[in-house]
Amino acid sequence: MPNDTKAAAPAEIEPAGANPVLVEVTRGKMVESRHRGSAVIVDAGGAVVAHWGDHTQPVYPRSAIKPLQAIPLVETGAAEAFGLGDPEIALACASHGGEPRHTEAVERWLATVGLGIDDLECGAQWPNHEDTGRALAKAGETPSALHNNCSGKHAGFLATAVHMEEKTAGYVRFEHPVQQRILGTLEAMCGLGLGDAPRGIDGCAIPTIAIPLENLAYGMARFGAPDDLPPARAAACRRIADAVAAQPFMVAGTGRYCTDVIQVTGRAVLVKTGAEGVFCASLPEYRLGVALKCDDGAKRAAEVMMSAVLRHIGVLTRDMEAKLADWIAIPVTNRNGAHVGDVRATDAITGGSIIR
Amino acid sequence: MPNDTKAAAPAEIEPAGANPVLVEVTRGKMVESRHRGSAVIVDAGGAVVAHWGDHTQPVYPRSAIKPLQAIPLVETGAAEAFGLGDPEIALACASHGGEPRHTEAVERWLATVGLGIDDLECGAQWPNHEDTGRALAKAGETPSALHNNCSGKHAGFLATAVHMEEKTAGYVRFEHPVQQRILGTLEAMCGLGLGDAPRGIDGCAIPTIAIPLENLAYGMARFGAPDDLPPARAAACRRIADAVAAQPFMVAGTGRYCTDVIQVTGRAVLVKTGAEGVFCASLPEYRLGVALKCDDGAKRAAEVMMSAVLRHIGVLTRDMEAKLADWIAIPVTNRNGAHVGDVRATDAITGGSIIR
Repeated sequence: MPNDTKAAAPAEIEPAGANPVLVEVTRGKMVESRHRGSAVIVDAGGAVVAHWGDHTQPVYPRSAIKPLQAIPLVETGAAEAFGLGDPEIALACASHGGEPRHTEAVERWLATVGLGIDDLECGAQWPNHEDTGRALAKAGETPSALHNNCSGKHAGFLATAVHMEEKTAGYVRFEHPVQQRILGTLEAMCGLGLGDAPRGIDGCAIPTIAIPLENLAYGMARFGAPDDLPPARAAACRRIADAVAAQPFMVAGTGRYCTDVIQVTGRAVLVKTGAEGVFCASLPEYRLGVALKCDDGAKRAAEVMMSAVLRHIGVLTRDMEAKLADWIAIPVTNRNGAHVGDVRATDAITGGSIIR
Repeated sequence: MPNDTKAAAPAEIEPAGANPVLVEVTRGKMVESRHRGSAVIVDAGGAVVAHWGDHTQPVYPRSAIKPLQAIPLVETGAAEAFGLGDPEIALACASHGGEPRHTEAVERWLATVGLGIDDLECGAQWPNHEDTGRALAKAGETPSALHNNCSGKHAGFLATAVHMEEKTAGYVRFEHPVQQRILGTLEAMCGLGLGDAPRGIDGCAIPTIAIPLENLAYGMARFGAPDDLPPARAAACRRIADAVAAQPFMVAGTGRYCTDVIQVTGRAVLVKTGAEGVFCASLPEYRLGVALKCDDGAKRAAEVMMSAVLRHIGVLTRDMEAKLADWIAIPVTNRNGAHVGDVRATDAITGGSIIR
């Protein structure tokens, strides 16, 4: 048998440096799984208001910053030139479920700018909304790039490129003016240079640039309270926030966290999910931004973390909490529909109090 | 604004007690997500051979102990009485994908014991194998309890109850003789009393009983090297191990970790996945058992952890490693199929050496 003469000690329990367990998953009377993470609340002046875990770590924001990535679409004048309404601008901020209302709107929008499905470089994806996927299968169809949850964002990129008279092919590449414009926007909104930041390729082929969690929250705070920004940018932020508040379905879809929270809280909270457990929020009235990352990338935990942070801030009324109960603690059910456990926030996040 | 007079410190970075990061997910040049966990290797004599993290923590084994839960099916004589072959016994140990070969075999098996789909109490589930689910949707059908990934295990429960002349209705309940027989088998195999152990309801409605990780590994070691067990039990363990080795497809299915590893390693490794990041293995030739749990419940991480432990033991030849490369480090791809990162083991598990 190999290795039988070696006797080095295996890795022991890690002594330090771990983010706190912010969410736990129960089954019966035992905690079955645990999710660590970090979260931070920052105000529009850049002050860290509260944090849990390491709020300085760089994270790939993925789709959680789509509202910031949508700024150039409005700021360049593209949205106005093409007569885009709330649905299109909300779709530019969306990780949608690929439901017919989403895909039909994106298809019409592409036609408006003289383009079509083949111009999308995001790749095809079976719709995130499962019933829609099954309906597609039932009809003997396969999904197109319209069903990609990012197709609205990509339509926004394409509309901007057409408006700016840039070549549309290759708009997903880091070097393309569309992506460079977004890079500059992120630098200005989040208050840091990103030229040397680590970057990767997102699920939809565009670059995703690592940004410290506290800077993401700062960017989201300023997005919601943009009065100190240049007028054209401030107007763009307000236009986007208005569109999302008016069209919460377009941002995500049936049975989805972002849609439900925006629908229930009205203009008070804009939340946006990202892959690998990232979540951002903007609270205009409070002049606050939130950014969080579940260490292990779990969606269920990031959602519960966001609910806990929103409760912590105090933005949810009792009525809102009642309506969002299943997003505050997500029920775990078995195949027969019995309630067998919960995904819930721990004392580490519900017990602390905000520093202001 | 609420809470603005409070100033208690929020939860800081947790000082101690965390399991090590055993798996990390990269994107570009940065680590995007991290999975902590614990793993343990125990020999058939009960000695802890190596461990990472807290190997004494109780975990719900979920489906990772299906080979142990299948013991009564053989030991009671039910398997022989009904003339069950390797496919049925492997299905009793399966978390299958609901592919036609799986569901057709379970349906035939139920008919053999004079029962049908309606006797299954596991609940219906869309097949885990996505193409099968879409084919079902395309045919205008909905899934039945046969498609539940646990339907083979439940067929085994029903066959045992019929053979023992027990009432089949309610066989999923803790008090039913079928579940009590399994409880006794688990106590004997894992070497501890479970009367007071925390328990929950599994996804398929049966009880899942918390067992310390090292006891799970001990049970799996004895399953693979059963010579010290009573003859009838030893024979049952060997019969089940033979069936799984002969029918790896029946244990999971197309594109699945368990099927691929069993297929590639032959009789050397029996691996079995469970929900919420649990994984067990039995290595008869080495007289070793493995049990591991990804703290956050992630499947991708538990799979990579298991591959790392198998490599650590030295059971994988170079040829096997080449064939299992995508299970040793799972490629992360985007919607266009580009390779943008990896789910890979960290030095905490690949750097240590086995203690023997």
